[in-house]
Amino acid sequence: MSIDTLLERRYRVLGRNSPLFYERPLHIVRGEGVWLWDHEGRRYLDAYNNVPHVGHCHPHVVQAVARQAAILNTHTRYLHEGIVEYAERLTATFDPSLSMLMLACTGSEANELALRIANVTTGNTGVICTNFAYHGNTKAVAQISTVFPPPEGFGPHIRAIPPPDTYRGLHGLTGAALEDAYVGEVRAAIESLSANGSGVAAMLICTMFSSEGLPNVPPGFVRRAVELVRKAGGLYIADEVQGGFGRTGRHMWGHEHFGVVPDLVTLGKPMGNGHPISGVVSRADLVQEFSGKTMYFNTFGGNPVSCAAANAVLDVLEREHLRENARAVGDYLLAGLGRLAGQHPIVGDIRGRGMFFAVELVRDRQTREPAGDDAKRVINAMRDRGVLISRIGPHDNILKIRPPMPFRSEHADLLLATLDEVLAGL
Amino acid sequence: MSIDTLLERRYRVLGRNSPLFYERPLHIVRGEGVWLWDHEGRRYLDAYNNVPHVGHCHPHVVQAVARQAAILNTHTRYLHEGIVEYAERLTATFDPSLSMLMLACTGSEANELALRIANVTTGNTGVICTNFAYHGNTKAVAQISTVFPPPEGFGPHIRAIPPPDTYRGLHGLTGAALEDAYVGEVRAAIESLSANGSGVAAMLICTMFSSEGLPNVPPGFVRRAVELVRKAGGLYIADEVQGGFGRTGRHMWGHEHFGVVPDLVTLGKPMGNGHPISGVVSRADLVQEFSGKTMYFNTFGGNPVSCAAANAVLDVLEREHLRENARAVGDYLLAGLGRLAGQHPIVGDIRGRGMFFAVELVRDRQTREPAGDDAKRVINAMRDRGVLISRIGPHDNILKIRPPMPFRSEHADLLLATLDEVLAGL
Repeated sequence: MSIDTLLERRYRVLGRNSPLFYERPLHIVRGEGVWLWDHEGRRYLDAYNNVPHVGHCHPHVVQAVARQAAILNTHTRYLHEGIVEYAERLTATFDPSLSMLMLACTGSEANELALRIANVTTGNTGVICTNFAYHGNTKAVAQISTVFPPPEGFGPHIRAIPPPDTYRGLHGLTGAALEDAYVGEVRAAIESLSANGSGVAAMLICTMFSSEGLPNVPPGFVRRAVELVRKAGGLYIADEVQGGFGRTGRHMWGHEHFGVVPDLVTLGKPMGNGHPISGVVSRADLVQEFSGKTMYFNTFGGNPVSCAAANAVLDVLEREHLRENARAVGDYLLAGLGRLAGQHPIVGDIRGRGMFFAVELVRDRQTREPAGDDAKRVINAMRDRGVLISRIGPHDNILKIRPPMPFRSEHADLLLATLDEVLAGL
Repeated sequence: MSIDTLLERRYRVLGRNSPLFYERPLHIVRGEGVWLWDHEGRRYLDAYNNVPHVGHCHPHVVQAVARQAAILNTHTRYLHEGIVEYAERLTATFDPSLSMLMLACTGSEANELALRIANVTTGNTGVICTNFAYHGNTKAVAQISTVFPPPEGFGPHIRAIPPPDTYRGLHGLTGAALEDAYVGEVRAAIESLSANGSGVAAMLICTMFSSEGLPNVPPGFVRRAVELVRKAGGLYIADEVQGGFGRTGRHMWGHEHFGVVPDLVTLGKPMGNGHPISGVVSRADLVQEFSGKTMYFNTFGGNPVSCAAANAVLDVLEREHLRENARAVGDYLLAGLGRLAGQHPIVGDIRGRGMFFAVELVRDRQTREPAGDDAKRVINAMRDRGVLISRIGPHDNILKIRPPMPFRSEHADLLLATLDEVLAGL
């Protein structure tokens, strides 16, 4: 079937606004490891998708899902060893204070649940988030997904602060003064939420500040912000949908980078390698208090098949040393991006943490004027040359490179060569 | 592993309040068709679970999931035939006005999305629901899941009306006067929401009024209520998580029973036979308006594996004539429950629609005093005798019998004989 015919049929049943990548959408029919194939048999290097965390269609995960689906797929109102084993194994990778797990199906549901727990246990409603963030699509979570301002408008309990960013900064400040300024934004948000009666239930942040453009964060910012939030009676919710499961290479969880243990951690995308599973890892006292006050049950959350998928993902991460690979290949690719920056003046900044990279394009290195149109041209040209990436950030000028974890140095070489060629042709 | 050991381990990682069925929880390890097996090899007749809609571990669905998981599992930002084919096939079973599909992962997400669409397209916030309803666990949806009053409290935009019920009635009324009284409750809710500035965004009801106890509804109630809601500018959202996919036997969708076409329909539990998939079927103009005002994307929603599971469920429904089976066995089982009612004075009322049955237990047929403790004894005694059912309703006195769709007359016989024995032994 031609792309045009499929697209027309899709418009009719899904509508014209259901988002699609690229100016010429891709019709993908097969995946394996870090590779995708389209309907004409053309191969693409996947340097974008983090859901297939351990690689597209990893046989160990596929087999685990197929095997468990044929045996039993019920819910957590019956006892099952799968969920208990997974919860024990997963919580063992966190600080001992984060000892309980509640399972759901999507990152939106995980953030919903964490916000409800914070709301009910603190008695406050106020939430501090960042501008240009994305945390999900439900009504409550859309309020903190500031990158797409909700058509319902923002409630009086929401305060979005500028994402901490040493490249673009704030008021022309740098160094310690810049960190102080960002901390000052948190202080002002707390004061404002206290003044209007919301109080502070939580600060919820992505531990990569991914949609915000993967900025480098002033070193003391998160620690100082969390101190202020806790002093005001609020909780620190770390959204690990992007930063978790070894993505950062140095750590299993993105929040470890900042040296502060969260009260609640939310997990999503990579957890089941594409199988819909998400979760909230929490302090035990918060789970007990919340679930003592209301019945929380998630029909599909923690079913035996989901837990088989999630357990298999942990197996592969360990057996194939994918966190270590993210560190090694991450360093290798970042060095390569550094060389490209030396050759192409349009590259204003490069940043990376493990297997996640940002290449910020600017019209002028002095003024740092964002080059959003060029970023768009680059991702479409990369797609045409068989390498899949995307773009992020407040100005849509930052190339987003976030491959599946089994990305090796030869894949990095192909990515770098293609990007070099595309940047040269701008 | 002993039940006690597994339970203790579960408490440690999931908490003590994660809900479990029965006084002595079941440790279920295998499922097939309408049967479940525990860790000691004991077999249970499943007369409760509706998620395994076409039967536990149906080989056609298992194979579809396994096959697609090995080929590709991405998302809707690339084109894929699976979602388009499913959307075309599914919407063809609805009134032509309901021509678009948005996919998500859980019933909560489907109801969230439908409420957001209603909110954004009507410009109103008010929602009319029923008392003792359950529609999901997110913050916005918990507001209408009145069976578990949310610890956050109810917002000023929520109005819960008494569930329409010809058995228990309202103010001692019956017949046309009773219907008028229930319609009057809707009218009062609309007036109150208009008066406080919320306006009416939607009336959202389960088309089985399942948690409310599967009541028989005054025949003109839904039609008249929807007329009032629409006149006030609101939409009619039919929650088909319980009543959909042929469950009612006579119709594919529960709302057809009432003869009113909804504006939005939400789908969940049975859709993927246990695979986490849900959806909103909608008027095209509502999807276009909503998605023109905000970006809606659901990472796992509509992925190729979910669509393979959902397509396989429709295959089995058709090939095995399960809707027709629900009608035939439903009538057969309902007749048998009628005979039990004749023999056991504790049975105050029996109700059924297709493959979903309610047996209302009362202390006294005249006063209709609910026998909630007896209902609890019955479901635990049934479990001990190898038949799984549950209970529902405002007074927890209604036996909930809702088997997988391939339930046959011999299974109905076993259920009836066991229930007869248990009621006799009370």
